[in-house]
Amino acid sequence: MTDSELISHIRRVPDYPVKGIMFFDVTTLFKHPECFEEVVKRICNLYADKGITKVVGIESRGFIAAAAVAARLGAGFVPIRKPGKLPADTVREVYSKEYGTDMIEIHTDAITPEDVVLIHDDILATGGTASASVSLVKKFNPKAVFVNFIIDITDVPRTKPIPEDIPVSSLLQLSEK
Amino acid sequence: MTDSELISHIRRVPDYPVKGIMFFDVTTLFKHPECFEEVVKRICNLYADKGITKVVGIESRGFIAAAAVAARLGAGFVPIRKPGKLPADTVREVYSKEYGTDMIEIHTDAITPEDVVLIHDDILATGGTASASVSLVKKFNPKAVFVNFIIDITDVPRTKPIPEDIPVSSLLQLSEK
Repeated sequence: MTDSELISHIRRVPDYPVKGIMFFDVTTLFKHPECFEEVVKRICNLYADKGITKVVGIESRGFIAAAAVAARLGAGFVPIRKPGKLPADTVREVYSKEYGTDMIEIHTDAITPEDVVLIHDDILATGGTASASVSLVKKFNPKAVFVNFIIDITDVPRTKPIPEDIPVSSLLQLSEK
Repeated sequence: MTDSELISHIRRVPDYPVKGIMFFDVTTLFKHPECFEEVVKRICNLYADKGITKVVGIESRGFIAAAAVAARLGAGFVPIRKPGKLPADTVREVYSKEYGTDMIEIHTDAITPEDVVLIHDDILATGGTASASVSLVKKFNPKAVFVNFIIDITDVPRTKPIPEDIPVSSLLQLSEK
């Protein structure tokens, strides 16, 4: 399947969630069996030789491809969630947003120093949540950390870049325009 | 892998999210590669001959195994979400809870009458969200609807039973006691 076939199944929703934002809706990609397979296959191919032991999905659209990839790579699945959603002891990361702050959590027993971790989210925009997720995962001192996105929105200012020592991949590079 | 090995990896969290509730935490199951594989394999085995074309995951813990199962069965993945989370046109279902009401949504283009649908959530308790999800999916007149859970909590009163014509399965039957 070509990039343009995949892209044709991503719905663009103007002014969502707020005016001026072009939202890339991956539900139309995931509901399509061949497209969902292509996404999962491409991510697995990128990381098949990395010895990934945990795939971390960022709540909640990030859970979807992350879980399918974890199962195919024979890895465990770990969620990063908004505050108050995880029932046991957590480690938290507070990060600044354009207005105010946000917070994400991971269970304290989710990752060990023996793990090789792939963090996945559907979309890379400012990088805020992804960078905070990297900080959170690094607290566990895993052997290695990789980050993957389905879509990199290239014309959003990368106000919170992911640290340069972390290998990052994205399947598709798209413009809001 | 035996049932008791799977069960030993489910964390019981007393008094979460409120006092008196025993919460079954599946994150400890999903982070364990062999347990996550066993869950996905068991669900796929149950539905391998049903011609499933869409696996519907209920937000947001239901997304995890649902997505892995969809990828393995060669089906599409569809999310059912809380109000306001889906960016395009939706169909809604309002359902009563012990105090007040709740609502769930699905995109209007998520399912067609040609689909064979498997609805999945991690846990069956009162049946409220699952029954509402069945009502929502039935509005699309799919060829067939199946429902699966990882855990059936058998001693919670089934105040909102799933309609008897819908085949339901659960991998594990557990008691809060």
